[in-house]
Amino acid sequence: MSKDKVTLVTQNENKIAELAPIFEEYDVPFETTNLQKHEIRSQSVGYVALEAAIRAFDTLKRPVVVDDTGLYIEHLNEFPGAYAAYVLETIGVEGILRLMEDATDRDARFDTSVGYCNGRISRYFIGTMYGDIAASATGKGGFGYDPIFIPENETRTYAELSLDEKIAISHRSQAFRKFLDWYVE
Amino acid sequence: MSKDKVTLVTQNENKIAELAPIFEEYDVPFETTNLQKHEIRSQSVGYVALEAAIRAFDTLKRPVVVDDTGLYIEHLNEFPGAYAAYVLETIGVEGILRLMEDATDRDARFDTSVGYCNGRISRYFIGTMYGDIAASATGKGGFGYDPIFIPENETRTYAELSLDEKIAISHRSQAFRKFLDWYVE
Repeated sequence: MSKDKVTLVTQNENKIAELAPIFEEYDVPFETTNLQKHEIRSQSVGYVALEAAIRAFDTLKRPVVVDDTGLYIEHLNEFPGAYAAYVLETIGVEGILRLMEDATDRDARFDTSVGYCNGRISRYFIGTMYGDIAASATGKGGFGYDPIFIPENETRTYAELSLDEKIAISHRSQAFRKFLDWYVE
Repeated sequence: MSKDKVTLVTQNENKIAELAPIFEEYDVPFETTNLQKHEIRSQSVGYVALEAAIRAFDTLKRPVVVDDTGLYIEHLNEFPGAYAAYVLETIGVEGILRLMEDATDRDARFDTSVGYCNGRISRYFIGTMYGDIAASATGKGGFGYDPIFIPENETRTYAELSLDEKIAISHRSQAFRKFLDWYVE
């Protein structure tokens, strides 16, 4: 039996390309909306995504899914954290590389939180990938910080992986799989 | 006649030292609270301070004042913007100076918004100071980004000014004076 459709609050084509195969795998239909997500300032992506989902449901009155991703770089005291998207739009990956120029500790982590709300239930699900910040931007795939993030057990950046390879392992995929495992129950 | 007391949502001693003389000048008594301000993610400090004031009133049930400050650096596409406080805590002024190393355009602007809410009325007031990002951190006064911000018509950074000099001109003073001008009417 096919599951109820959910509304994904995003217009990011790259993200949709990564998520469509996962939703298909779970046989869960989705649509997207250009509703602006309401973002609170918090370093917990879980809380950001949950609040955003609750607010999106209040507006749309149908089951919604909102994701939020943070990048936490150890050498930079976890900067850019939950403001990863904003930092990308302003100083970009070049800014991050400059801030990391002499850094020997290049440990970083991506967290994606998927928030869900249907008016009765609201929950969030987190996926995490540990890795390193590369010395320079490499690769043409993916989006965002992908050219400078080398996931653990890999020598290539996310941007050097094929779409299938990235979908198989990424922080975002993990978070959406956790949500979908729960949703199809 | 003395005005009603307002509650200032801050615990920043440096900020209180700058504001106390201004409140005194207007004969408006204030107290502080350690309530955590509720911050939405928005690049408009006006909206951030207004929402924070409304939320603080909801909790405290007495007239509240909340301020929020953004630093907008032209060369960095207005980074760190309304996330100035977070960026200071992570990459700090050293991070900003590194990002600005080769920048010839050093124009920047500070905006402070003062949000007020007493349950019937909610308003915000903005003060702005244009200036330049210094080549290095200079001066021991002030706090935050003061050692790297040279206000217009000055050759010294905010941190090199005396407390009185800073109080006379700063973006924060301007915003609070606008609020107090309105409040004492």
